[in-house]
Amino acid sequence: MKIAILGTGMVGNALATKLVQFGHQVAMGSRSADSDAGRQWFKSVGGKGQLATFSDAASFGEVIFDCTNGANSLAALRQAGAPNLRGKILIHVSNPLDFSKGMPTLTVCNTDSLGEQVQREFPETRVVKALNTVNCEVMVNPSLVPGDHSLFICGNDETARRKVAGWISEWFGWKSGNIVDLGDITASRGMEMWMAIWLRLFGKLGHPHFNMCLSVGSK
Amino acid sequence: MKIAILGTGMVGNALATKLVQFGHQVAMGSRSADSDAGRQWFKSVGGKGQLATFSDAASFGEVIFDCTNGANSLAALRQAGAPNLRGKILIHVSNPLDFSKGMPTLTVCNTDSLGEQVQREFPETRVVKALNTVNCEVMVNPSLVPGDHSLFICGNDETARRKVAGWISEWFGWKSGNIVDLGDITASRGMEMWMAIWLRLFGKLGHPHFNMCLSVGSK
Repeated sequence: MKIAILGTGMVGNALATKLVQFGHQVAMGSRSADSDAGRQWFKSVGGKGQLATFSDAASFGEVIFDCTNGANSLAALRQAGAPNLRGKILIHVSNPLDFSKGMPTLTVCNTDSLGEQVQREFPETRVVKALNTVNCEVMVNPSLVPGDHSLFICGNDETARRKVAGWISEWFGWKSGNIVDLGDITASRGMEMWMAIWLRLFGKLGHPHFNMCLSVGSK
Repeated sequence: MKIAILGTGMVGNALATKLVQFGHQVAMGSRSADSDAGRQWFKSVGGKGQLATFSDAASFGEVIFDCTNGANSLAALRQAGAPNLRGKILIHVSNPLDFSKGMPTLTVCNTDSLGEQVQREFPETRVVKALNTVNCEVMVNPSLVPGDHSLFICGNDETARRKVAGWISEWFGWKSGNIVDLGDITASRGMEMWMAIWLRLFGKLGHPHFNMCLSVGSK
């Protein structure tokens, strides 16, 4: 499949590398198409992929992963361009984190979320929030965390959610029973606000290889 | 032990009942000391407990559970009175939820939390945020959720956190290995923002008997 990865940071890098290894055609998008991070990635996968602008990557991809820095996510998607995103599934991985003031905080939360902002701005794109609740190494290798553990997804389009859940299973190795569908895109609030306890646990544990498993009793 | 429970709602009721069953002397505090909810609780435990004002309950308790509605938590604690709380451990269970606008939201989050507000207003009280991340039936009966699952606590006083963890184990049956100490009171942010995904899961599952288990891999 032709897949666009927007963002050349750690998250984009991890996902793009795994997708290339899986045999997909991957375009890694950034503002300039020739960022240092992009070129390093390109070299690391032996040239099996391509570097592009946000716009060219989005145009190329049948499916698009938004792995941009949350603070720049909307701006990057505007550069990608609504026509290049129209009708496509956009897997929204970014968290709206602000690291500029010591203890990281969210730039939007509680009554809104970045996932919802993106869906509102690109109403013809099928936004599925996913993967943002775990570290990028865990995203593409869930066995880094022992036992069963949960991955949450949400989005307004049920078919898109089902497709994304299937891809996450197939490409990244998540057991389908561990993928928890939270329904429409407003669940992005909870999935992004999750960052507050995630960052605290990261600080306490000293590494990001952890996650949580949902356990449900009877009514 | 002499224990005060502030708040006669479902949470206060569940904790007070369990503590009476455990053999503690429990004073259930409310604004008026003779609320309907309070009298019902008193009857349900066969009169083994007492009803009191916030102030009398706080004065009576060696340890105090704040189970008031989060929107009224600070006002209730002011009625309880700083001198009655001084030097004591206050186990802060309330969440700052606003149910008045459809989808519940938090009245404080991200850059502050109710736990921190309480600690700032009562600096001589040892505030430990605990139990707020699960439903009240699960609080006092963790076996309602299958397998291991985690309970988070935080607070500025390490000795107080250790004591509270011990009590939660002893009185309510939580395995000590499942109690996760998140450090100082600023972790209340993550523990209260947890509500956003908790409420979503509650809506999805249709009942509150669920929780999450932290699973940690290697560095």
